[in-house]
Amino acid sequence: MAYSPAVQELMEALRCLPGVGPKSAQRMTFSLLQHDRSAAGRLARALQTAADSVGECRLCRNLTEADLCPLCASGRRDPGLLCVVENPSDVQALEDATDYGGLYFVLKGRLSPLDGIGPGELGLESLEARLAAGEVGEIILAVSPTVEGEATAQYIAGMAADAGVDIARIAHGVPLGGDLDYVDAGTLSHAFAGRARYR
Amino acid sequence: MAYSPAVQELMEALRCLPGVGPKSAQRMTFSLLQHDRSAAGRLARALQTAADSVGECRLCRNLTEADLCPLCASGRRDPGLLCVVENPSDVQALEDATDYGGLYFVLKGRLSPLDGIGPGELGLESLEARLAAGEVGEIILAVSPTVEGEATAQYIAGMAADAGVDIARIAHGVPLGGDLDYVDAGTLSHAFAGRARYR
Ligand SMILES: [Zn+2]
Ligand SMILES: [Zn+2]
Repeated sequence: MAYSPAVQELMEALRCLPGVGPKSAQRMTFSLLQHDRSAAGRLARALQTAADSVGECRLCRNLTEADLCPLCASGRRDPGLLCVVENPSDVQALEDATDYGGLYFVLKGRLSPLDGIGPGELGLESLEARLAAGEVGEIILAVSPTVEGEATAQYIAGMAADAGVDIARIAHGVPLGGDLDYVDAGTLSHAFAGRARYR
Repeated sequence: MAYSPAVQELMEALRCLPGVGPKSAQRMTFSLLQHDRSAAGRLARALQTAADSVGECRLCRNLTEADLCPLCASGRRDPGLLCVVENPSDVQALEDATDYGGLYFVLKGRLSPLDGIGPGELGLESLEARLAAGEVGEIILAVSPTVEGEATAQYIAGMAADAGVDIARIAHGVPLGGDLDYVDAGTLSHAFAGRARYR
């Protein structure tokens, strides 16, 4: 073993990052220790702070170290619109791509009873309570068109119906400008089955 | 901005890692905070420990938190053989690929006067003192066949001649099994110019 214990441990710890194999971990270690000692310290502090303090938003379950995330805490979002997404990254993607001005609810997963993921794991009681409170007028589902995503959509549609709340779902299909032969078969079959009358 | 400050800061701090752009940093942040909180803590500690404690080996300049790196401290390496490399990662590559049993010297760069990198920046005085001490019988140069690598090789060859130490250089050329049309032009031209008599 040519590495000292502290170097070896850093190399191994970096492997917890998604997409980082032994070669990348080695490259990252040398880069941090040779050229970027202060960046290593900054990253260490950011990791420790986030690991110690980040929990979930009381309203939307997005990641935050505060009681409410910046969007739920903002007075400038429409509380009558609620977009339901699977992951925190979906929130940022929609914020970047649309001018949506409502709030979000982050499921952090999809219904999957075989994996032990039921309504409780997705925080659906708190969503139900929120719908019962009457402020939400429309739900927009932005969950994936997978088997589990469909089951999740169905479940939430049932809750919306019980609460008398409108519900819509974002369109899935062939991406704009996408060549049909580059689109995966699942997307293409979904787009074909979901065809709408033209003119 | 949909991210809370601690999440945002972690995302930005991860960008110091080589090869990590905004999308990867986001993916890493969510992965650490959603699924891998204890790994985030471990990585934070490993980074802090390494950033605070790792310096360079007194003899070979490789990264280590001790006075001597594991190889220089080992009693089982031949102190008469010294392989000179450019980077710490080269040491591990040679250890993995060969049965070399000598010691190393890590330049951490190449002579490049225009960039302010002279013999002092590469630790060549300490290499000279080591050669003068008489224990090293052969130097093996494993520096890159670039312009700066050649200049570095020439300089060290001069030191070796002054000290009466043998010097060799690892072979550069077309990789084994490498198709000629996949090899870069520099390597191919080098391999062609350095052709040896066949039979
Ligand atoms: Zn929130
Ligand atoms: Zn050493």
